[in-house]
Amino acid sequence: MTRPLLLSPDRLFSSDPDQRSIARALYAEIATLPIVSPHGHTDPRWFATNAPWTDATSLLLAPDHYLYRMLYSQGIDLDRLGVPSRDGTPNTDPREAWRTLASHYHLFRGTPSQRWLDHVFAEVFGFDVAFDASTSDLFFDRIAELLAGDAFRPRALFERFGIEFLATTEGADDPLEAHHAIRASGWQGRVVTTYRPDGVIDVEHEAFRPTMERFAALTGEDVWTWSGYLAAHRARRAAFRAAGATATDHGHPTARTADLDPGAAAALFERVIAPNPTPADAELFRAQMLTEMARMSIDDGMVMQIHPGSVRNHNARLFGTHGRDRGADIPGRADFVNGLRPMLDRVGNDPNLTIILFTLDESTYARELAPLAGHYPCLRLGPAWWFHDSPEGMRRFREMTTETAGFYNTVGFNDDTRAFLSIPARHDVARRVDCAFLARLVAEHRLADWEAAELAHELTVGLVRRAYRL
Amino acid sequence: MTRPLLLSPDRLFSSDPDQRSIARALYAEIATLPIVSPHGHTDPRWFATNAPWTDATSLLLAPDHYLYRMLYSQGIDLDRLGVPSRDGTPNTDPREAWRTLASHYHLFRGTPSQRWLDHVFAEVFGFDVAFDASTSDLFFDRIAELLAGDAFRPRALFERFGIEFLATTEGADDPLEAHHAIRASGWQGRVVTTYRPDGVIDVEHEAFRPTMERFAALTGEDVWTWSGYLAAHRARRAAFRAAGATATDHGHPTARTADLDPGAAAALFERVIAPNPTPADAELFRAQMLTEMARMSIDDGMVMQIHPGSVRNHNARLFGTHGRDRGADIPGRADFVNGLRPMLDRVGNDPNLTIILFTLDESTYARELAPLAGHYPCLRLGPAWWFHDSPEGMRRFREMTTETAGFYNTVGFNDDTRAFLSIPARHDVARRVDCAFLARLVAEHRLADWEAAELAHELTVGLVRRAYRL
Amino acid sequence: MTRPLLLSPDRLFSSDPDQRSIARALYAEIATLPIVSPHGHTDPRWFATNAPWTDATSLLLAPDHYLYRMLYSQGIDLDRLGVPSRDGTPNTDPREAWRTLASHYHLFRGTPSQRWLDHVFAEVFGFDVAFDASTSDLFFDRIAELLAGDAFRPRALFERFGIEFLATTEGADDPLEAHHAIRASGWQGRVVTTYRPDGVIDVEHEAFRPTMERFAALTGEDVWTWSGYLAAHRARRAAFRAAGATATDHGHPTARTADLDPGAAAALFERVIAPNPTPADAELFRAQMLTEMARMSIDDGMVMQIHPGSVRNHNARLFGTHGRDRGADIPGRADFVNGLRPMLDRVGNDPNLTIILFTLDESTYARELAPLAGHYPCLRLGPAWWFHDSPEGMRRFREMTTETAGFYNTVGFNDDTRAFLSIPARHDVARRVDCAFLARLVAEHRLADWEAAELAHELTVGLVRRAYRL
Repeated sequence: MTRPLLLSPDRLFSSDPDQRSIARALYAEIATLPIVSPHGHTDPRWFATNAPWTDATSLLLAPDHYLYRMLYSQGIDLDRLGVPSRDGTPNTDPREAWRTLASHYHLFRGTPSQRWLDHVFAEVFGFDVAFDASTSDLFFDRIAELLAGDAFRPRALFERFGIEFLATTEGADDPLEAHHAIRASGWQGRVVTTYRPDGVIDVEHEAFRPTMERFAALTGEDVWTWSGYLAAHRARRAAFRAAGATATDHGHPTARTADLDPGAAAALFERVIAPNPTPADAELFRAQMLTEMARMSIDDGMVMQIHPGSVRNHNARLFGTHGRDRGADIPGRADFVNGLRPMLDRVGNDPNLTIILFTLDESTYARELAPLAGHYPCLRLGPAWWFHDSPEGMRRFREMTTETAGFYNTVGFNDDTRAFLSIPARHDVARRVDCAFLARLVAEHRLADWEAAELAHELTVGLVRRAYRL
Repeated sequence: MTRPLLLSPDRLFSSDPDQRSIARALYAEIATLPIVSPHGHTDPRWFATNAPWTDATSLLLAPDHYLYRMLYSQGIDLDRLGVPSRDGTPNTDPREAWRTLASHYHLFRGTPSQRWLDHVFAEVFGFDVAFDASTSDLFFDRIAELLAGDAFRPRALFERFGIEFLATTEGADDPLEAHHAIRASGWQGRVVTTYRPDGVIDVEHEAFRPTMERFAALTGEDVWTWSGYLAAHRARRAAFRAAGATATDHGHPTARTADLDPGAAAALFERVIAPNPTPADAELFRAQMLTEMARMSIDDGMVMQIHPGSVRNHNARLFGTHGRDRGADIPGRADFVNGLRPMLDRVGNDPNLTIILFTLDESTYARELAPLAGHYPCLRLGPAWWFHDSPEGMRRFREMTTETAGFYNTVGFNDDTRAFLSIPARHDVARRVDCAFLARLVAEHRLADWEAAELAHELTVGLVRRAYRL
Repeated sequence: MTRPLLLSPDRLFSSDPDQRSIARALYAEIATLPIVSPHGHTDPRWFATNAPWTDATSLLLAPDHYLYRMLYSQGIDLDRLGVPSRDGTPNTDPREAWRTLASHYHLFRGTPSQRWLDHVFAEVFGFDVAFDASTSDLFFDRIAELLAGDAFRPRALFERFGIEFLATTEGADDPLEAHHAIRASGWQGRVVTTYRPDGVIDVEHEAFRPTMERFAALTGEDVWTWSGYLAAHRARRAAFRAAGATATDHGHPTARTADLDPGAAAALFERVIAPNPTPADAELFRAQMLTEMARMSIDDGMVMQIHPGSVRNHNARLFGTHGRDRGADIPGRADFVNGLRPMLDRVGNDPNLTIILFTLDESTYARELAPLAGHYPCLRLGPAWWFHDSPEGMRRFREMTTETAGFYNTVGFNDDTRAFLSIPARHDVARRVDCAFLARLVAEHRLADWEAAELAHELTVGLVRRAYRL
């Protein structure tokens, strides 16, 4: 039996009539504001080439670790889903992979993945029937048909989605060719890069040495000396700035920072580039580099984003067969209070520096992050991230940070996604959840209606534009 | 003044009219489904002998650590409550002990104990007045009278409660006589055992050596050699399987696991059975044994339950006078992400293995457990446990796990209780709280009504039957 | 445009009509009960001299770290706000400082600071227009005018606020002159001291030695010997008791306790009073002193309050310029389960001892504090504290502690404030949030209406009077 696909206009609002009507009014004022996406992982080549996507599986399933990790957790092999392994993309029929998703779509009940996909199906592709085993082929065929048309090319969708700003993320060794091509094309969409130097900072990364070689080649610096290494960072940061970047991004295992004197830092550098550095030195070097990056941010004005706390590649066998970023990164505990202290001792009182903190450890929201951001001039809180980029996760973020850090030490929403078609869905969820939160405060007489209206605008576009210096 | 005892048909549902009416409809469909109780601590001798219980104190108060720990916290000596000590059961008048509970019943306001007891009083015994000092004797006398009748014998209540499956828990040294007697009696109630080998794995347990001696006697193996010890586990697991067991249970201080090579494991075994093993070796041995048990589960198909994180016998003086399990176990922090890794490296991708995880550290729900269960094929999440087996605890469990792990990586409810009469009360609370949670998702347009109806059925009987392989 | 300042009579109640009407009825019965404030930091000289306050900035802004930490986090220098530094009070025009607060008042949206200030403006000073840049001078002038009148002197406000009991906090080296003056004045307001000996227990405090010298001078004891040091504590405790104190207060970095034998304790004392004690010894000494203080509490009946877990002076530069207590204390993780164990082994089962625990680490509420308080006779839970003294913080406290510890192992609200004018505001928030929580339990049929009414009274005055032995 085919069921209808309906997106209620009241979705994610409280069912309490008072709160719902306030939320509706707040949302009506901000629903169509432009999308500002200052942090994400879309592929800039899409916008450089504007080539059409081909099918639902390669566009929506195979690259989305939210989807295939859930299916894997229920015993479905990644090969059946078309997920690339170290041996390349498996020879899986995309239609069959799509059917596997469809017949297991119930697994996503109550998860943001279902919210996002249903939004994509209804709003982007115009489906009015629910996705399940009985409609799988209908969806597959219609999506392929639509993707072949000009209206579904990357730039067209970018414009249709009302995106004002979209940041991608590139490594320090990336020549930024796609971004240069976007600029050279004359297209007016504002797609910019973000400087993510983890690959030349994490000496434990399996590709550290080849990445460093490309870093050297791009800059002409002797990156195997401490001074040359720092100069190479400065050079690449300048190149990224020139390509439009306003921010850097740092995804470290922990929030640890260090502030060594120059001699000790140089000696540490020597040790970590030698073969087989100790884990303690590798960690200390990552810690030191956060402070170095903060110092460079004071010089060049780049906003610094720190995303700590993911235990990468937790599943050893899967890492062996499929490599990184295959849904096997698991959060660990974070310690921002002690971890950030050395860096904050150095730069924490500089009002010209902005450091945006993200966490996967929600126990730090009220205990550590809100008190830190409610004191240090340089600190701001990024939105609920990754596993917490969800209605309940966003609600907990607001409930646990607002009373200590306020709204104005936060930076609005970012989608952090490589799933381009879901960007409007994700921003819509965030806007609705924020309006629902504000509506509760108004209905409980903790905020005036006009304050909530101002805040809804700030949370949607104001704070993000200011925090990321757009 | 005597007050009425009323159980509202809407208890535990939201007071929001939309949510309440949805919850009512969901609950109506699952309220009378059979009870599946795959994890608990009732005494199998009750069902083997079918002897009547005698009085309210020995049935409801003296064995219930939820009740007497609260009374103890307010200065009431355990002797006054009839709680057994190392010297035996105190010579306390059961009627006086019951009066002590009655006159302090206000202490339980807002706790699940009050919910459960009121349900037992109203639904099992048919009281229509509230329990307090003025009705204490009325309750005591009427309960004694009812217990003397055939309708309140263990098997009659088992049938009246609609229990489809009830698992008890026995140690590796238990001869399973009660379970054999149940089978031999021809009674059709399905009461089975669960293999709980902690007593022969925790070398720091004060009864380790005599337990090992019984383990040896039952199996005929030389349990003081590593190979004999493992063979004895296999033998007992087979015996438990033959007696109906589908699961094992492991209550360790931490979630640490290890995966030593056979030689190192054998050497470790030698060290821990020698006098005065180090705490580090004792912990490492418990860690190694989880992996050994997981390997045996792959062989024999038993589902593995891990309940880590309780600091046992926190109150040294009480342990001295009253021994274990007297309400003085306090949760500590848990680390599943690093702790489980060695075992998961070994068995985590096996879709034929099921490991059910429980926690007392709710900060791990969203940070660790949901991400782990939302990835590894072998992992499932047990329900909110022990101190969190409560309306708020269950709500937090759903709010913090569903968006990442979904509903289908959970396993329904279990009551974990030795309080047999409260089993329907506990399952009723869980069903109501789950329906209330689903109703909120429907009312906020995050789930379709038909999806919620399917899920209510799954959370009540479907998931538990599949997870425990019934 | 001037906006009205309105305090809704339904503020902080749920917008659900059922819950709201129950909350209204509960609140109506307790709204005007006297204020019992057993823990705070008001200045006793106010009540000794009864001298008028002068202006809004020095009364409401410059001493309130909740306010200036938020402004500082947005780049506003503390000098602009009149906050004293190590060089003394800055030469800032109070009217200009007040204007700075007014023009940034939006930063406090959603924070308790705005709730409290608006209450002070409306209820204490009678304003009916909102505070913002356009009304800043109006507020400044009118407040100055009112403060000059007799009705706004400290004792008059104390009486107007309906304060039944107000505890201040003084160090072990305080001669208690202000408290003696209050008594000698014949004024009937009950303002008493609390014994806070941190300054002579924390050997890492920069003022340890001069504080010890005053401690010696006041007691005539040789405080540089272990026996003299303990005798000095006993002498000062007796003096505080004589001045009305019923409680002690201990603000340690961690919850660690120790129970050394007398010889080891004496040796430790020798080590920590010698120059440059190790951090480990300093920590061990603080740990040992909690047990010593608990023992003295058994002797003299003083209730013991432990407030652990704040990382003090996190901002090194600000500590250098402005010293302690300038909004740069950040919570860290706490471990009560292992930390308190040595002390509890010694005194935990004594029903005549009361130890009230506070935390800044909410992850310990359900995991550690509620289980501990729900078992040990000596333990009670203090209310949501500091960063968590807020509507959401209080709600989480009740949701995470009630089901395990009940209501009766908590001690009512305390305001913990140096902002005297906000005391009624703070107690009103607590009463409203508690009534809202109870109303939810009633509306969800988890508590009878008459039970909720009894509990509302207990949470407002009953529990605090008994816990603090008033």
